[in-house]
Amino acid sequence: MSELLTRLEVEDLKENLREVQELLHRHALAEGLVSRQEIPRHALVEQLVHKQHLAELRTKLENLHPADVAYILEALPLEERLVVWELVKADRDGEILLEVSDAVRESLIASMDSDELVAAAETLEADELADLAPDLPAEVIQEVVQSLPAEERERLRSALSYPEGTVGALMDFEMVTVREDVTLEAVTRYLRRMDELPDHTDQLYVVDRERRLRGTLPLARLIVSDLDVEVAAVMVPERVTLHPQDRAADAAQAFERYDLVSAPVVDARDRLVARLTVDAVVDYIREASAETQLAEGGLREEEDIFAPVLNSFRNRWSWLAINLFTAFIASRVINAFEGSIAKLVALAALMPIVAGIGGNSGNQTITMIVRALALGQIQAQYWRKLLAKELGVALINGVVWGTLLGVIAYVLYSSIALGGVMALATVLNLILAALMGVTIPWLRSRFGKDPAIGSSVLITACTDSGGFFIFLGLATLFLV
Amino acid sequence: MSELLTRLEVEDLKENLREVQELLHRHALAEGLVSRQEIPRHALVEQLVHKQHLAELRTKLENLHPADVAYILEALPLEERLVVWELVKADRDGEILLEVSDAVRESLIASMDSDELVAAAETLEADELADLAPDLPAEVIQEVVQSLPAEERERLRSALSYPEGTVGALMDFEMVTVREDVTLEAVTRYLRRMDELPDHTDQLYVVDRERRLRGTLPLARLIVSDLDVEVAAVMVPERVTLHPQDRAADAAQAFERYDLVSAPVVDARDRLVARLTVDAVVDYIREASAETQLAEGGLREEEDIFAPVLNSFRNRWSWLAINLFTAFIASRVINAFEGSIAKLVALAALMPIVAGIGGNSGNQTITMIVRALALGQIQAQYWRKLLAKELGVALINGVVWGTLLGVIAYVLYSSIALGGVMALATVLNLILAALMGVTIPWLRSRFGKDPAIGSSVLITACTDSGGFFIFLGLATLFLV
Repeated sequence: MSELLTRLEVEDLKENLREVQELLHRHALAEGLVSRQEIPRHALVEQLVHKQHLAELRTKLENLHPADVAYILEALPLEERLVVWELVKADRDGEILLEVSDAVRESLIASMDSDELVAAAETLEADELADLAPDLPAEVIQEVVQSLPAEERERLRSALSYPEGTVGALMDFEMVTVREDVTLEAVTRYLRRMDELPDHTDQLYVVDRERRLRGTLPLARLIVSDLDVEVAAVMVPERVTLHPQDRAADAAQAFERYDLVSAPVVDARDRLVARLTVDAVVDYIREASAETQLAEGGLREEEDIFAPVLNSFRNRWSWLAINLFTAFIASRVINAFEGSIAKLVALAALMPIVAGIGGNSGNQTITMIVRALALGQIQAQYWRKLLAKELGVALINGVVWGTLLGVIAYVLYSSIALGGVMALATVLNLILAALMGVTIPWLRSRFGKDPAIGSSVLITACTDSGGFFIFLGLATLFLV
Repeated sequence: MSELLTRLEVEDLKENLREVQELLHRHALAEGLVSRQEIPRHALVEQLVHKQHLAELRTKLENLHPADVAYILEALPLEERLVVWELVKADRDGEILLEVSDAVRESLIASMDSDELVAAAETLEADELADLAPDLPAEVIQEVVQSLPAEERERLRSALSYPEGTVGALMDFEMVTVREDVTLEAVTRYLRRMDELPDHTDQLYVVDRERRLRGTLPLARLIVSDLDVEVAAVMVPERVTLHPQDRAADAAQAFERYDLVSAPVVDARDRLVARLTVDAVVDYIREASAETQLAEGGLREEEDIFAPVLNSFRNRWSWLAINLFTAFIASRVINAFEGSIAKLVALAALMPIVAGIGGNSGNQTITMIVRALALGQIQAQYWRKLLAKELGVALINGVVWGTLLGVIAYVLYSSIALGGVMALATVLNLILAALMGVTIPWLRSRFGKDPAIGSSVLITACTDSGGFFIFLGLATLFLV
């Protein structure tokens, strides 16, 4: 694969996409798919050679890394995407399907028949097949499984048995193992008989007769050592050992902390079953951070940017529904103070400010705490300390912004009482925000829930309804 | 370093913190820092041996990897943190300072005098020193620079000259280079003379007399090849070549796509100057995603969870100020319709719903587009297509939620006209949200700004003020 690539600079990553688009455009023009007005007249002669554009495009694609083809597919609208997909050599289908995002993968798989899917799946190794399996039709999986050798079938079964987010779902079965009582000379001879080592082989795993892990032999150490000595003399204890059921997030943290390239995965009886490599960890980190980002933006999952409108609607409606529900509650709170607003309309204009600053401040608190929880930085005994700190920050914010808002309200509406209510409501809503910003993640983590999910919606619901209630309530008490 | 560690399981990462806390607690108890009621009575005898706890703690810390010590420091309140920091062996100060978060680093550096800082800095290599430099007092830097050998000083100068977010700021100068006309036998002998290879050496760099990059020699290939052949015969063309001024985000994307462990960094004349390794890339990805998450939560930067209240206030006030400003504008919009609200108070209760659903829907659009832009998936010619799609989604959302809200408004306030205004305002604000959700990132990317920064604040400002204006405007036209 690496041999295919000539020297690549970072700018080339995007250049490939532009070239493919250029070729697609010429092809579309030749086919009459694009209006002629859009391009300069001299290009019209190319109509005669439109077959040639496709051939050129095919050659271009053949020279690209599967990940680059995946990137191009993701950046093309559906119609162009399928033209390119048709041109990609069939024996690379599997690899490319692995690289594209879930949403785009769906659109590609929908364009393939069962035979093509089976052929694509059969080019993959067990751990890769496991990644693809959820998106494939059941009959395709069945056919592929039947064609697998027994060992691969067992690996596939094993990889599929671990849920997403565990080490088991990311691990890789290809690795080199050696015994501790052989010489480095023998190890070297053994390695030379292999055509090439599995990707990301930075170390060999030393196991005993029962495949129990004894240590590791880094390649860098093998190279600098005397060939006469035995493996046992130069092997090192592995830094981190993983289990298939370990959380992928914890494993990623270990890779980050100890700068690992690969780590062994062992079963309950300490037998080596697989390894985890840094490329899988990098993919996991990217995906996990994308999920957080998408969830915070109110999207259920990664979206194909050229998805049909109805697919996008399905990806988005649930968060809108939840937000609408919380907005409705806030609306009922306002409704309860109808009488006060009728008497003093300024309240209607000022109330969103109080709710808004509470929401923003609460989001700051909850973001910081959710992050610290995810990094394992908050120990049970420090919650009270944290709450005290957040209340302190809320108090300072309250005094600063409350005073400012109070003065503005006084200047705008010439009422000292209204200014006072505005200031007091701001302080109280900021305190509410701090309280809920600490309490919500605390409660959720105590009950074993992921404190990140929906944290922003929850805190905003509290500070909106709470802010309206506090401000309108104070106004009703003191002003009307 | 790796030798220090015995076998580690993922659960041990948190276990270390608990053990340190236990020892700290006993120490604090012995010192009378903690009230006796908090712990069981039998522990009181330990007062007699409090020196021993510190010794035990010191031993515990000495056996930990610098990254683990960093994690423990981050999770401890200031007072305990400084007790632990005092106990860490001075010669590891530098490494540990590199590993802790910026905020916590500040608190540690504040506790050290110049001599300690100089001693800590002197244990680091040029690229590491460059990472630490922004947090060190100028006189410390100066003293350290003077003590550096000329080559290291040049490297430090070079690393410091590239801004954050570039390859130059992440690159590493330690690597092994070989010539293409020597035999693998000679390469192996050369490597054996080194005590150990630099971390993350998965390949050697083949350079000519002028240090121009000719190719790479992967260790895995060196090991399986015949020792009699020359480097030129087995070297491979490097997959990706980086320049120091390349964006770190692009480099990270290349590492992710091609599953790299290391990549060469060359200057404008193609001479090898450094390399980038996957551990630096992983750190970069983590930090970049943390920054996004923090910015979206309204925090300027990573916060020490035990930061003094005033530090936290400084980290948060700017976003609150911006949000307050946009809320104020929305408030003035409402104020302009005071007359209508006075006549029909229900408007005050319903208007936040219209603004809210617009904000949520706009955030969904902008999140998707900002992500796609960051991944390089949006080409200039597709903006119109994207806008059409988003308007389509907005229309479906508008019909679905507008109808629902219209019916609810009708049921609550028994006014068909109010229900109609509610429905129409919802549709229009969703269309506004889609329009701005596409236009804002488009404009920002056209003018070379980062479309991610503040995108949520901008879109919410539009949909809040816009939503109030549309709803109250329609109500004024048709209802009052």
